[in-house]
Amino acid sequence: MTKKKSAKPQKPSAKPAQTVSAETKPDLAAVRAQIDGLDQQIQQLIAERAQWAQQVGKAKGKLAAAVDYYRPEREAQVLRRVVDRNDGPLGDETLVRLFREIMSACLAQQEPLKIGYLGPEGTFSQQAVHKHFGHSAKGLPLASIEEVFQEVAAKHADFGVVPVENSGQGTIQSTLDMFLTSPLTICGEVELRVHQHLLSRSGRLEDIERVYSHPMSLAQCSGWLRQNLPKAEKIPVSSNAEAARRARNADDAAAIAGETAAQVYGLKAIAGPIEDRSDNTTRFLVIGRELFPPSGHDRTSLLVFIRDRPGALYGVLEPLARRGISMNRIESRPAHGGLWQYAFFIDVAGHVQESPLRDALAEVSESAGDVRVLGSYPVAVL
Amino acid sequence: MTKKKSAKPQKPSAKPAQTVSAETKPDLAAVRAQIDGLDQQIQQLIAERAQWAQQVGKAKGKLAAAVDYYRPEREAQVLRRVVDRNDGPLGDETLVRLFREIMSACLAQQEPLKIGYLGPEGTFSQQAVHKHFGHSAKGLPLASIEEVFQEVAAKHADFGVVPVENSGQGTIQSTLDMFLTSPLTICGEVELRVHQHLLSRSGRLEDIERVYSHPMSLAQCSGWLRQNLPKAEKIPVSSNAEAARRARNADDAAAIAGETAAQVYGLKAIAGPIEDRSDNTTRFLVIGRELFPPSGHDRTSLLVFIRDRPGALYGVLEPLARRGISMNRIESRPAHGGLWQYAFFIDVAGHVQESPLRDALAEVSESAGDVRVLGSYPVAVL
Repeated sequence: MTKKKSAKPQKPSAKPAQTVSAETKPDLAAVRAQIDGLDQQIQQLIAERAQWAQQVGKAKGKLAAAVDYYRPEREAQVLRRVVDRNDGPLGDETLVRLFREIMSACLAQQEPLKIGYLGPEGTFSQQAVHKHFGHSAKGLPLASIEEVFQEVAAKHADFGVVPVENSGQGTIQSTLDMFLTSPLTICGEVELRVHQHLLSRSGRLEDIERVYSHPMSLAQCSGWLRQNLPKAEKIPVSSNAEAARRARNADDAAAIAGETAAQVYGLKAIAGPIEDRSDNTTRFLVIGRELFPPSGHDRTSLLVFIRDRPGALYGVLEPLARRGISMNRIESRPAHGGLWQYAFFIDVAGHVQESPLRDALAEVSESAGDVRVLGSYPVAVL
Repeated sequence: MTKKKSAKPQKPSAKPAQTVSAETKPDLAAVRAQIDGLDQQIQQLIAERAQWAQQVGKAKGKLAAAVDYYRPEREAQVLRRVVDRNDGPLGDETLVRLFREIMSACLAQQEPLKIGYLGPEGTFSQQAVHKHFGHSAKGLPLASIEEVFQEVAAKHADFGVVPVENSGQGTIQSTLDMFLTSPLTICGEVELRVHQHLLSRSGRLEDIERVYSHPMSLAQCSGWLRQNLPKAEKIPVSSNAEAARRARNADDAAAIAGETAAQVYGLKAIAGPIEDRSDNTTRFLVIGRELFPPSGHDRTSLLVFIRDRPGALYGVLEPLARRGISMNRIESRPAHGGLWQYAFFIDVAGHVQESPLRDALAEVSESAGDVRVLGSYPVAVL
């Protein structure tokens, strides 16, 4: 799940035309006048960009809704260029966020994208929606992951965002299992860093005899808990918010929850971040109704059903390996009866419409099993 | 609370250099190439802007933290210019949001602003924080309005955002009363549109015999409830989220809650928006530790203590009226004992450092009562 920034040529850095030495204190009014001039140019260019975006909409049909001309592969390309060009001073992440917002605003001119996610508002899922689609998209908080799939299938939402794995804890099975029956397609992925904190009423570690949290969060912090609270009871509850609510009502209880939700329940932070891996990341999938063209740096998720006979899995993997196609993930699941007895979720590099993956999948289908392409989509840009 | 857009001269509109007729379908690749060129220019200008913003930081002292050079009056001026210049196609609101984000990113280069607000995340207060400070600022959800004041006073937060009034329902007294004892200053205001919906398990109006909501929300929708649910019991609860939770557990109950929170609890929308005033707006105050200079379009909030004698209030209002200073709001509160027997919260147009308000206040202080300036701050830009 690590990403490499593509090597970039050294560009002349974006120095202000009228260079100011770091030692002399610049004249505030002069600096502000410079900024005002830049703002005027930026605004003019954003307006031009919005007008061209309307032309894209027209190219797709008169007054097309955002969903009709939203193209994830194109957005990924634009953002990769932003990262490649970036010579500071703003960080890649900040610039990508600004350009997502600019694209989001340009796209929402007719009608904004509607994005279903696992609510309530304020969850990591909502953050993932904003990170991927910008704030001009309209988020629809839903009660369950099933409902996210249903609302997208029923066209009440244009896309959905669902959590699918955590870097420390692995796959969220219930999300993957939805693909066993759903006709939806994976159109993108979003990665979000997640930090956990230990919270309690008193803020004193020595008071704690019980720790509440979502099972996933408990697992993410199991090393820290073993070291610092070996005797405390670990009690799984339905959400980290529920955990915080319970910790509020007892002197000897603590909750593991996100930093930002920390003070909502009047709790004090005992320690944090306490997750065992400092790169604790949650990965989300963007689900939609359509397969999009290649972006140049894509991933493909496959669902492969295999007959229960010797060498069947090898028959799937060999055509991929022979072509040098790298595999990010493989996970077996019991299939729901019938001719095929095993199902495998496999993530591989590349796009299903491009060689070598296209040829490899043709070969797998012929010989080894039934291959369903869950989606080919751009690898997350930051 | 209505705002007028300043009259703007007709500017040449931001047409793409290579104009495309609306009738012909443009070539997608050509349009995208245009957009790519614009993106490159926008990025270059944003980078230059960020470098100049660093110079502002240096003008304020080496490696100044964001709080040291954040200037609300300057931000308001920049945003007003954005609105004045705007000839479409993006709306004023969208452009103001984009420029807030650009400013927010430029400001956060050293250390982001920390903004305390009434949590939890996902509340209207959090939306107000993002609307005013952009997403590069760091929001701190707190458990109460008191805590927001405390954390800002203790310098754990740079600024706080607290709700102060609703266009339909008037003042949130508990917020105003904080100023009776707090030394903090009002540094800005944020206005947020708020819509209410009626939600229930079945989605059928005829099933409803009880309606739960926060007292403020019940009041905002009282006209609609009288007309559509005259016999239903109105039951005030601590929050709209709590209302939705209760409505989930009964067939004959409904909740009034915000649109985005609607589906979290698995409820269906019976009707919405149902607030009596379509311009239902909540106003928030930005609180800080400092008085900032005039922005050119400011408001001043005063706390005036008056002796209980005939004509005392007139003695306060006359010097304002005589100078043509318009008053947006006046509200009396019992003062906490002592020599002064009445306290008035008064909002007036203008900045305390500028005539005619400065002179008027000098006159009031001399003759009629004790005047405390709670803050002079830019009128909300959208």
